[in-house]
Amino acid sequence: MEKPEIIMAPGPTPVPPEVLLAQGSPLVYHRGPGYGDLLREVTEGLQRVYHTAGDVLIFAASGTGGLESAVQNLFSPGDRVVVPVAGYFGERFAKIAAAFGLDVRRIDYEWGTAVNAEDVRAALQEAPTKAVLVQHSETSTGVIHDVEAIAGVAKDAGVLMVVDGISSLGAVPYEGDAWGVDVCVGGSQKAFSATPGLAFVSVSPAAWEATKTATNPRFYFDWAAYKQAYDLPSPENPFTPAISLMLGMRAALRRYFDEGPEAVLDRHRILSAATKEGIRALGLDLSGEHLDRAWAVTAVNAPEGIDGNALVAKVRADHGIILAPGQGPLKGKVFRIGHLGNYDRFDIIRCLAALELTLAEMGYPVKPGSAVAAAEGVFAAHP
Amino acid sequence: MEKPEIIMAPGPTPVPPEVLLAQGSPLVYHRGPGYGDLLREVTEGLQRVYHTAGDVLIFAASGTGGLESAVQNLFSPGDRVVVPVAGYFGERFAKIAAAFGLDVRRIDYEWGTAVNAEDVRAALQEAPTKAVLVQHSETSTGVIHDVEAIAGVAKDAGVLMVVDGISSLGAVPYEGDAWGVDVCVGGSQKAFSATPGLAFVSVSPAAWEATKTATNPRFYFDWAAYKQAYDLPSPENPFTPAISLMLGMRAALRRYFDEGPEAVLDRHRILSAATKEGIRALGLDLSGEHLDRAWAVTAVNAPEGIDGNALVAKVRADHGIILAPGQGPLKGKVFRIGHLGNYDRFDIIRCLAALELTLAEMGYPVKPGSAVAAAEGVFAAHP
Repeated sequence: MEKPEIIMAPGPTPVPPEVLLAQGSPLVYHRGPGYGDLLREVTEGLQRVYHTAGDVLIFAASGTGGLESAVQNLFSPGDRVVVPVAGYFGERFAKIAAAFGLDVRRIDYEWGTAVNAEDVRAALQEAPTKAVLVQHSETSTGVIHDVEAIAGVAKDAGVLMVVDGISSLGAVPYEGDAWGVDVCVGGSQKAFSATPGLAFVSVSPAAWEATKTATNPRFYFDWAAYKQAYDLPSPENPFTPAISLMLGMRAALRRYFDEGPEAVLDRHRILSAATKEGIRALGLDLSGEHLDRAWAVTAVNAPEGIDGNALVAKVRADHGIILAPGQGPLKGKVFRIGHLGNYDRFDIIRCLAALELTLAEMGYPVKPGSAVAAAEGVFAAHP
Repeated sequence: MEKPEIIMAPGPTPVPPEVLLAQGSPLVYHRGPGYGDLLREVTEGLQRVYHTAGDVLIFAASGTGGLESAVQNLFSPGDRVVVPVAGYFGERFAKIAAAFGLDVRRIDYEWGTAVNAEDVRAALQEAPTKAVLVQHSETSTGVIHDVEAIAGVAKDAGVLMVVDGISSLGAVPYEGDAWGVDVCVGGSQKAFSATPGLAFVSVSPAAWEATKTATNPRFYFDWAAYKQAYDLPSPENPFTPAISLMLGMRAALRRYFDEGPEAVLDRHRILSAATKEGIRALGLDLSGEHLDRAWAVTAVNAPEGIDGNALVAKVRADHGIILAPGQGPLKGKVFRIGHLGNYDRFDIIRCLAALELTLAEMGYPVKPGSAVAAAEGVFAAHP
């Protein structure tokens, strides 16, 4: 089972050889100009990705560590936060906030629903609140929440806007400063196609201000310690960094800027459209709302009589292609195709062809080539 | 400054090509049998390293994250802990405990001193206490504390024994279960010569018991979440793991067991002795107590009139060899040579030769070849 696997799940994603080679090159010692240059290039690249003039901090951790860092650094026990929950990662953010003793005002949605900014406004009007915590891309449903609109509501109410952008950054349009986002958490293993193990956090001036009174305990993820070390003449980490992953991330960002941020977004938009047209051509229903913006992940309702988990398992067993199953209440009911990261058109074609073969074997009526033809139609229209 | 650097600091250490190649190989998807096998091999290897039948958990984090995980999972605010502080990492453990609101009973020593188990006994007798938190190797001074004796005292008092073994595991004899250690934190980038970014924690049954009543907030480092995922039929991580670093760590452990744990210890013992004899032959004084056990790091008093930091900077600038400077009160007064990890005899010879050249240039009277000859004497006696 150590053969290469064809990952089409929403992270980690296939890693380009340049990134793997960078990860396999000798270490740069973490005190000194070599690492200083590396850290500076990666943080400046991420500032461009985030469209922010504010700080971006990098942790050796999964994305969840980055989410926890926001809860630790911004809040004190008892602080009220509004947390829309429309999927697995909304649940996670609410759980982290609860673990740290915050007063969590959930707004519960059926999974697959897009968060409504007016619901957030109403929840903010109920009581004094410190922040809104919300996903940009809810990876479990593929739905993109309207962070721009929600951030506007947060700004109107004078509260912090904290975004889980782990599976959206780089794959979906995002404008940190222009939208008024205070904190946005990202991860290396998503649209950038680096490997997992680095979490990023953007921190606005208002967020820094909030850290000064926040009493939640923190040490490893203490933002101020990172800021102090980054501001040295030769930037450093307060704790030994994951140097190899930083080398990989630099290579990934160089690829990202070589292709061009707009071109990367365009690619994600077209691959998403091709995937969705292919799925529709099979007579399957997409799951979730506002899917014209869902460029990171496509969630599909499993057809009547076919279990989504069984389908995912069979595509993996027969074709080596790893799709993602449904989570929570969507378990067995949907399957998910990740198309964020280092994918090209023929990755989508391959995936749709595998689905045609497997669905037919499972007794679903498939016209061979129909999904592929629909995707080709999208590509032909976007040469 | 991106040229390969010759690291002789106490971590990160030079990484063998097999480990780099493993880190540069394609990802194994983190849900499924491939990753399950990887996780099982690494955790079982670490159990052998720790000499424990208890659990070993692995986090995507620096070693400091592992230390924080112990404070989060074992304690509640107000719990009394005894923390001997005889160097930079003793300070760090005390700071983490204070950040989480523990009642920290420090035992302060001059840096370079070895912790005395009887001091710990006396501190434990003063008031009801939950645990002792102590380094095995105090990296900042090179001194190895007598964890076996201190653990005996902790056991007598019925309190938990929590060890920072980050720079000792694999380099210095350690017997987790036999000594009665409850929790020991390790890191990938030290004696194993993998790259930084993974922290390990061993957890005894008594430590698990303590987690049940510990109220310190935690999420990313919540041990119970890891345990639950490790216990699945195909072991998993609760959060996306640093897959590439796990591939590197597996390669590092395979090397470690190929060489043999006893042979690795023997190598560290001999390289340490050769380093120390070389230093003495130069007429320099070693810094710290009980140095016959200091197999991980050798701290040296900078000679009269030569600043330790300037010496470290010049050895790096002239010869590309990265030594470590003194920290805290030892800043400028000592320099440190790391010899834990993937070093052989001629790495020590090279380092001593560089010191001979640089010290002579800085005006210190050196008999060329004298340090090298002394090291050769040690090697000749241990063919």
